[in-house]
Amino acid sequence: MLVPTYNDVLDAGERIKGYVNETPVLTSRTLNDQLGAEIYFKGENYQRVGAFKFRGAMNAVSKLSDEKRSKGVIAFSSGNHAQAIALSAKLLNVPATIVMPEDAPTLKVVATAGYGAHIIKYNRYTEDREEIGRQLAAKHGFALIPPYDHPDVIAGQGTSAKELLEEVGQLDALFVPLGGGGLLSGSALAARSLSPDCKIFGVEPEAGNDGQQSFRSGSIVHIDTPKTIADGAQTQHLGEYTFAIIRENVDDILTVSDQELIECMHFLAERMKLVVEPTACLGFAGALLKKKELVGKKVGIILSGGNVDMRRYAALISGREDGPMT
Amino acid sequence: MLVPTYNDVLDAGERIKGYVNETPVLTSRTLNDQLGAEIYFKGENYQRVGAFKFRGAMNAVSKLSDEKRSKGVIAFSSGNHAQAIALSAKLLNVPATIVMPEDAPTLKVVATAGYGAHIIKYNRYTEDREEIGRQLAAKHGFALIPPYDHPDVIAGQGTSAKELLEEVGQLDALFVPLGGGGLLSGSALAARSLSPDCKIFGVEPEAGNDGQQSFRSGSIVHIDTPKTIADGAQTQHLGEYTFAIIRENVDDILTVSDQELIECMHFLAERMKLVVEPTACLGFAGALLKKKELVGKKVGIILSGGNVDMRRYAALISGREDGPMT
Repeated sequence: MLVPTYNDVLDAGERIKGYVNETPVLTSRTLNDQLGAEIYFKGENYQRVGAFKFRGAMNAVSKLSDEKRSKGVIAFSSGNHAQAIALSAKLLNVPATIVMPEDAPTLKVVATAGYGAHIIKYNRYTEDREEIGRQLAAKHGFALIPPYDHPDVIAGQGTSAKELLEEVGQLDALFVPLGGGGLLSGSALAARSLSPDCKIFGVEPEAGNDGQQSFRSGSIVHIDTPKTIADGAQTQHLGEYTFAIIRENVDDILTVSDQELIECMHFLAERMKLVVEPTACLGFAGALLKKKELVGKKVGIILSGGNVDMRRYAALISGREDGPMT
Repeated sequence: MLVPTYNDVLDAGERIKGYVNETPVLTSRTLNDQLGAEIYFKGENYQRVGAFKFRGAMNAVSKLSDEKRSKGVIAFSSGNHAQAIALSAKLLNVPATIVMPEDAPTLKVVATAGYGAHIIKYNRYTEDREEIGRQLAAKHGFALIPPYDHPDVIAGQGTSAKELLEEVGQLDALFVPLGGGGLLSGSALAARSLSPDCKIFGVEPEAGNDGQQSFRSGSIVHIDTPKTIADGAQTQHLGEYTFAIIRENVDDILTVSDQELIECMHFLAERMKLVVEPTACLGFAGALLKKKELVGKKVGIILSGGNVDMRRYAALISGREDGPMT
């Protein structure tokens, strides 16, 4: 297993330049005054398709050989990865097939189809999407691009932290949402090289603390799909690549409650005028757990994305819905 | 009456530099594709105190003589102008008194008091705030800074359009929210000088079309306080200064419905991840009325602010509330 390094992040940055948005770094005087710290948010909610996932997808599709490109790519996802692969493929004139559940939200199906992807639907209660994906890949020669456990995907995700560090300079701490670990492992590669003394924290929902369990036990722990509003972090386990990098480079894994995510989402809307998805608040909520230690420090937080159904978003920020959801 | 000119906007820009945020210019590939136009939003929701009002307030307080500064400033407002004056005064060490209704939202009272302003409450059903303001100004020698009809306020508000035009170059059309006319008249001064061929449109809620009536009849029309969700545009009439500039420089005044504002607010949240207040959507909704004429054009839209109660915001974007409010 050839684990990616910071050089791969650098290469990814060159490769996807001009395709990805260089997302803004956002600050709040109010928050800095409250915490007595300098907080720099990296706004991946302003990335194309609305999430950091486009970075890794674009890097992975770009790296395919001409022969593989001509056959096409396949991904299974109902979330941001699906749209990220569909758009990446469209930009490079590569055919894309996306395997989505029959009951995926219409908006997401329409958006993915809008990028020209071929959609295959499956019943998520009776069929196995990984099996469907593998069969289609074998039959048609499609390149399967997984959502996080792939060196090219990890290297692409690391370009967000790279941009942040290049813009604001060295940091004392960096807080990153953790699901399958693509964003965290890529960010850790960037931060270890560009800011060697930076403490790196992954943050996951407390209902889905497989990452923390894995980090502490030294081997990948599998859990049932967790019930949390952070739908981008409802993964059941880290990947082989992501775990190897996280174990080596990350300082700790923190967990936060759904209520803490809601409070962060509310603050970001009310005070910073930013719409983010619940998963994107993991890093911010993790930083608030450590606020006593952050006084006088320079801190980076990655806001991973902004894709959320508006009715659900409205319910969350207005406080009408504060319990865990499936 | 000495009506301000673009030179006053230029002076204001120099004077308030370093105090105001140079707000971002925001774009959406999706929107540009849909309209076949280049749309540039100026994000005054990212201005200090969350609205363009800080520009005019900061310019007006800065221009006071040392003697006037030592006596203090007074404003009557329950909205963005109150906070803008309070923060401007704080930054310049000037005492500030704000006259607010007894039933003003606690959040706004706390925010205004948080900037160190002295708050005077009045009963808005039995007392006249203008009379209270004038009496206090006369008694204590306070400088009264009105929310829009003042040359220094107008010149300050014009710095937003000035920044926009300096960043993106000449425009074919500019759409600006219209309440009392401070933002529109300042923007018109900037656009007439920096982009002489630009069509300039003011946009107001259809329930409060006093600006359109005034523009078309040639004299200032007074109306009752209109019922609209655009609470920043619930003014009853234009000012003497603002009307003179608007009449001279603006191409037309458009009106939009509350439902059109809600649709714009929803789009800005869902697709551009931006939280804006209903009033801020006036320019965007006005541009959509003209969309057939905007094909192939380069268009500026000023998003005037982002201060909105989160419960109300949530209700609006989730479509649960779509009728006019007082």
